[in-house]
Amino acid sequence: MNGGNSSDNLRALEAQVAELKLKLEDMDNKNPSNKLSMVVFSGEMDKILAALVIATGATAMGMEAVMFFTFWGTPVLRDKRKKAGKKDLMGRMFGAMLPKGTGEVKLSRMNMGGMGTAMMKSLMKKKNVASLEQMLEMAEELGVRIFVCEMSMDLMGFKREEMIDYNGITFCGVAKFLEEAKDSRVQLFI
Amino acid sequence: MNGGNSSDNLRALEAQVAELKLKLEDMDNKNPSNKLSMVVFSGEMDKILAALVIATGATAMGMEAVMFFTFWGTPVLRDKRKKAGKKDLMGRMFGAMLPKGTGEVKLSRMNMGGMGTAMMKSLMKKKNVASLEQMLEMAEELGVRIFVCEMSMDLMGFKREEMIDYNGITFCGVAKFLEEAKDSRVQLFI
Amino acid sequence: MNGGNSSDNLRALEAQVAELKLKLEDMDNKNPSNKLSMVVFSGEMDKILAALVIATGATAMGMEAVMFFTFWGTPVLRDKRKKAGKKDLMGRMFGAMLPKGTGEVKLSRMNMGGMGTAMMKSLMKKKNVASLEQMLEMAEELGVRIFVCEMSMDLMGFKREEMIDYNGITFCGVAKFLEEAKDSRVQLFI
Repeated sequence: MNGGNSSDNLRALEAQVAELKLKLEDMDNKNPSNKLSMVVFSGEMDKILAALVIATGATAMGMEAVMFFTFWGTPVLRDKRKKAGKKDLMGRMFGAMLPKGTGEVKLSRMNMGGMGTAMMKSLMKKKNVASLEQMLEMAEELGVRIFVCEMSMDLMGFKREEMIDYNGITFCGVAKFLEEAKDSRVQLFI
Repeated sequence: MNGGNSSDNLRALEAQVAELKLKLEDMDNKNPSNKLSMVVFSGEMDKILAALVIATGATAMGMEAVMFFTFWGTPVLRDKRKKAGKKDLMGRMFGAMLPKGTGEVKLSRMNMGGMGTAMMKSLMKKKNVASLEQMLEMAEELGVRIFVCEMSMDLMGFKREEMIDYNGITFCGVAKFLEEAKDSRVQLFI
Repeated sequence: MNGGNSSDNLRALEAQVAELKLKLEDMDNKNPSNKLSMVVFSGEMDKILAALVIATGATAMGMEAVMFFTFWGTPVLRDKRKKAGKKDLMGRMFGAMLPKGTGEVKLSRMNMGGMGTAMMKSLMKKKNVASLEQMLEMAEELGVRIFVCEMSMDLMGFKREEMIDYNGITFCGVAKFLEEAKDSRVQLFI
């Protein structure tokens, strides 16, 4: 092997290394972020509690967290102090029958006409577990992002003006959730 | 440094680059595909709706989607026009008590003796949300793959001949689901 | 190009390759392990069955599996032969109303005053599906790791001394679960 060949080989190798570098960067870009995405489908107190504990826990660990509220999860984000404008009959019925905000949600089991839920609330206070209201505030401070499913809002007749004030709250469809989920290390359906 | 050493070094480097390339390919192969895998355990209308919206949404975005129907999810895939052969007592009981196909599923909340479910169906129509039947057809067209849990079929006494016609429907065990889930960027249990 | 330049180029390339190697190792370390993490939130027979089938299935396929029992999932891990020490009124109420161990869990649907659950148990036996008790033993043998949520234990007044003997059972918070989930290829909330 002479110097000339060697220099050809070197150039060939340089090209290979450049290619590898690009491929590596491409792979790195496609790798999911240090993020948690969850669908909050259920609107019961215990599940909302679990969802908020996991989401705030994730941000406390330095992860991003995204909560996508859909179906029974959506009424939980209503602000009890706000009034929606005119609604049709169905919208009024859903509005009246579903919990208005985190204060009205019930346990999925052992609700016992509200007694179980009241017991759980008093227990949480006694054991220094934050209430749903406080956790939602914490989530906002910690930068947990909240998405609300537009299809669910539309089906149940909820309006944006009756939802809570929450920094960066976004109304969107399933595609937006999937984009976040694809780029997340952890995904949960709650 | 003379030419000879340089050429030795070059050869050593070539070997290193070849090794890196293999390692990179190996990592790339192990990386999950742009795929969504979900377990559809629940058989209620609202959860089946969510599952189908997510699965068809994923394929519309260019992802693969796999739905693994198990437990209460399995009766939903029965074809109401089909009859199963002879069943034992238990099989007949499960067959009679569980919904036969997407047309008979009920809301998990606010069913109110069927009134809530009927309301939701009429709302979906009014708001131009596809029915479960239509969504299942859409899923088939979009290439969503459907797996059915054999253990659940066996437990509940369902037979293959009473299940819907669906392109590529596969009857399998949990291992098949886990293989798909492992190779997916998003996994959900619904 | 002369030999000197070539050798400079070679050294530059060696540095690049070394850098690529480090980056590749770093990416490989950040990649999730061949592991499944699940939150077992629900305490019903059918969901516990699904969770255990998936977890033992995963280990049988060579994956690691971690189950994080929280909320309604926690009472299922109580040992019916064990007695807890003194409890306050709330703790005694939760203790009495929630299932004590896998033997007392009920179906989430079609329980029919216990008849449905009894039917399902006899069906599982007939169809050679392992009982929850047997599956839990299998899980232990296969090395499925079990975490129990301390917040849930505290809220419901459960004590460590009333929980089952299980190799490596760990009492911990949500951060521990998230660490495992982040490092897992599959995550589920059941």
